[in-house]
Amino acid sequence: SGWRGGGRSSALLLICFNSRYFCTFLTLEVASPLVNLLPTCNGEITTMSFLQDVVDILLQYVVKSFDRSTKVIDFHYPNELLQEYNWELADQPQTLEEILLNCRTTLKYAIKTGHPRYFNQLSTGLDMVGLAADWLTSAANTNMFTYEIAPVFVLLEYVTLRKMREMVGWPGGCGDGIFSPGGAISNMYAMLIARFKMFPEVKEKGMAAIPRLVAFTSEHSHFSVKKGAAALGIGTDSVILIRCDERGKMIPSDLERRIVEAKQKGFVPFLVSATAGTTVYGAFDPLIAIADICKKYKIWMHVDGAWGGGLLMSRKHKWKLNGIERANSVTWNPHKMMGVPLQCSALLVREEGLMQSCNQMHASYLFQQDKHYDLSYDTGDKALQCGRHVDVFKLWLMWRAKGTTGFEAQIDKCLELAEYLYNKIKNREGYEMVFDGKPQHTNVCFWYIPPSLRGMENSEERTSRLMKVAPVIKARMMEYGTTMVSYQPLGDKVNFFRMVISNPAATHQDIDFLIDEIERLGQDL
Amino acid sequence: SGWRGGGRSSALLLICFNSRYFCTFLTLEVASPLVNLLPTCNGEITTMSFLQDVVDILLQYVVKSFDRSTKVIDFHYPNELLQEYNWELADQPQTLEEILLNCRTTLKYAIKTGHPRYFNQLSTGLDMVGLAADWLTSAANTNMFTYEIAPVFVLLEYVTLRKMREMVGWPGGCGDGIFSPGGAISNMYAMLIARFKMFPEVKEKGMAAIPRLVAFTSEHSHFSVKKGAAALGIGTDSVILIRCDERGKMIPSDLERRIVEAKQKGFVPFLVSATAGTTVYGAFDPLIAIADICKKYKIWMHVDGAWGGGLLMSRKHKWKLNGIERANSVTWNPHKMMGVPLQCSALLVREEGLMQSCNQMHASYLFQQDKHYDLSYDTGDKALQCGRHVDVFKLWLMWRAKGTTGFEAQIDKCLELAEYLYNKIKNREGYEMVFDGKPQHTNVCFWYIPPSLRGMENSEERTSRLMKVAPVIKARMMEYGTTMVSYQPLGDKVNFFRMVISNPAATHQDIDFLIDEIERLGQDL
Repeated sequence: SGWRGGGRSSALLLICFNSRYFCTFLTLEVASPLVNLLPTCNGEITTMSFLQDVVDILLQYVVKSFDRSTKVIDFHYPNELLQEYNWELADQPQTLEEILLNCRTTLKYAIKTGHPRYFNQLSTGLDMVGLAADWLTSAANTNMFTYEIAPVFVLLEYVTLRKMREMVGWPGGCGDGIFSPGGAISNMYAMLIARFKMFPEVKEKGMAAIPRLVAFTSEHSHFSVKKGAAALGIGTDSVILIRCDERGKMIPSDLERRIVEAKQKGFVPFLVSATAGTTVYGAFDPLIAIADICKKYKIWMHVDGAWGGGLLMSRKHKWKLNGIERANSVTWNPHKMMGVPLQCSALLVREEGLMQSCNQMHASYLFQQDKHYDLSYDTGDKALQCGRHVDVFKLWLMWRAKGTTGFEAQIDKCLELAEYLYNKIKNREGYEMVFDGKPQHTNVCFWYIPPSLRGMENSEERTSRLMKVAPVIKARMMEYGTTMVSYQPLGDKVNFFRMVISNPAATHQDIDFLIDEIERLGQDL
Repeated sequence: SGWRGGGRSSALLLICFNSRYFCTFLTLEVASPLVNLLPTCNGEITTMSFLQDVVDILLQYVVKSFDRSTKVIDFHYPNELLQEYNWELADQPQTLEEILLNCRTTLKYAIKTGHPRYFNQLSTGLDMVGLAADWLTSAANTNMFTYEIAPVFVLLEYVTLRKMREMVGWPGGCGDGIFSPGGAISNMYAMLIARFKMFPEVKEKGMAAIPRLVAFTSEHSHFSVKKGAAALGIGTDSVILIRCDERGKMIPSDLERRIVEAKQKGFVPFLVSATAGTTVYGAFDPLIAIADICKKYKIWMHVDGAWGGGLLMSRKHKWKLNGIERANSVTWNPHKMMGVPLQCSALLVREEGLMQSCNQMHASYLFQQDKHYDLSYDTGDKALQCGRHVDVFKLWLMWRAKGTTGFEAQIDKCLELAEYLYNKIKNREGYEMVFDGKPQHTNVCFWYIPPSLRGMENSEERTSRLMKVAPVIKARMMEYGTTMVSYQPLGDKVNFFRMVISNPAATHQDIDFLIDEIERLGQDL
């Protein structure tokens, strides 16, 4: 009703949108010219029909993304792709028709990350409500630093983070937190805050003024712990990697031994980063035992649940994170297991106010103290960023659309599919599991053994040939474009496939397809 | 053509989209069910018509955003807004109708950052091509870490960063860079890389192994320099603030004096962060003089051009950044002066390979060394982030649509409007300029003096009353919702308005309106 109201220069327009697949008749009362915002100058009609044309292209792409008869990827080598089309930037404008062509071409060569047979990363799928929410976020085009310019989004961040803290198990959802640009940055925040909690003088005086710190994390943990330590001036040598058992879980006795050792050397242990859902094995560190050790030695306990945090939504699987409620901070990326569009990563902190003290710089041009509303809603100064993208809305809207039970169903289904895959290949000819036992997350790690290597004794030759199997199959997958799954070596284990499932559109048939495809592409190796 | 091709279970469907303003007849050949991605289960028809409904809501919002007869903001206090609507997250799903209502309600209370009378931040406006590009980015939903999963976007980042480096003036556009989540993080990268360049051992050994570092920046520089120093373990005390002249430009002789002083104390100067376009005054530090000093003392020269970098697009104004070509690194935020949707910030580095050495951790699950394509396109390991949002596409597509000359025209227009404002108020009754002379950027800083304070002698009473004027007018602006402009104190100067213009939709009449509105709302103070 509002927008139809006034309009000094408003006029009733009948606009016909023509695009390849749509013909839309639209009655609009339009007020002000958008003319100069577009390279061509016909005003609102052009503008709106341009946007609708782009939407048409995107809707086609969405439908295609879920169509199993289309390729996951139309692969081209970088030099080919550079030659395939003129991507250069010029002095002169292009026409709107050319802009639409740019969009089509970009999507032609894009990876269909929503395709039910794209298993390549921890983030897969394309949620329709999440997509709609991201479109709205773009149209709202604002910044999270103050309530003044993002009132709704600031409140939604407050509501959503509180709910996430409740699910972690902190009483009443109390505590603090922020949405950050990805799990690596969330982990870096945890390290930053843990250091500040122990030695607040570090903020002014730097590392020179405080003792040598050490952090502990498992050898299977994410590389961002070391990356954060390098950035924060702690140094990667001060990140001590704790041994894991054969399933990739941190061994608590090794943790305690290394803490004692570090203290004997005069170092100050300030952080243990446990992992709930490791990147490759999907392992859950034993959080209760780790919490006991952190308590005993008064060390900040961080849980990197970037990948595994989603299991907190599932009544069936959340026991795997038992003990997380004792953490001082938690990383949880809804853009992974919960299928929220990229990026959406939360850092949750148990102690309220610490982030603010650690990071605030009181910029008076943003955080004026004489504003007319409650200043506790100006949350920007607790961030490392100044401008901060609105990442909360897509999670919030998806949560409203699915409810907690909807996320639960989606996650349970992905875990059930992983178990199906495990059961299918554990005794199948031509497969070896990287570790024994049912997967705890959706990670299923395995070698495909081509016929020529079957029955061959363990030898250097076999190892060096096996090492090349996964890369060749993967390269062929990409060239055929039929499916994508990741591989990597780990420790003394040569290249193996790491299957992960986070796309609720995947089915048992897609798992069957993957196995068939690996065998088809690898039988001659 | 492609998507119409196969489809094992494809069917010809006639879909009627019904929404308030659209009636669309669409012929689609649809293949696979999207059913379980939505809270209701009617398959593609529901899905596509839901997305179209959301688009309809967004298109209305876009039109409204540019309509001067609508409010910039429908202001509610936080507690009111929390009560106005039920924002809570629940176990059970909502219907699609309710989801659409959530979208409408969210937009009802959003700030119209594209409104031609929204002058509150450095990022304003809503570019149609940028919006379309952001929508495409959401639909493509991928991650920047490897060529494998973001082939086009990785190439576009390469093309766009090279073009930006060319405009900075580095021969052939050579060098390095990355799109980062905002200017504060870009500035932090610069500090991180400068430190690593001088003391590469810091990566492994931390700050404990290297001498005490000091950085220099002006007292008018952005707070992120200090924030970065705190995070990186350098400490805010090691950021030395250099004095500025009355226009807010760093005084080179003071810089040199402080460098010599620091060296005498045994500290190691490692970074000078000059500002090209300060946040409040819009001042440009004298880059040539600063470059001479950096060269003399062998210090990394960073230019924070987050706000002023856009002027490189203008043949008329780029002289203000003369000397930037001598910088070692540059921050430039296209989401500010160039009107790209949030977020889009580039860090440019002159020396190639340094970012990679500084930040890489060789995660073998992402950066496999035995892939089948040129691995130099797997750029993810040079970032602090692991997952990284695609920020380049909106800039690239806008650049294609406008050409460099289009950005130039847009920026020249905003600067012309700022000059119009300056000329209008410099001798007008009831105004005092915060500094003399024509603005160099679009920042125009001024006090509005209400009638009751005019002619009053400078006294404590006058100062304390003047201090309250801008906050009251601003609060009234927000309650009426007619316009928004920022204010702040700075040093010994009490609250003054900082007008900035970065929205190409703004006109002379909007400037006139702002002045009328300040006078209307402030005359009784």
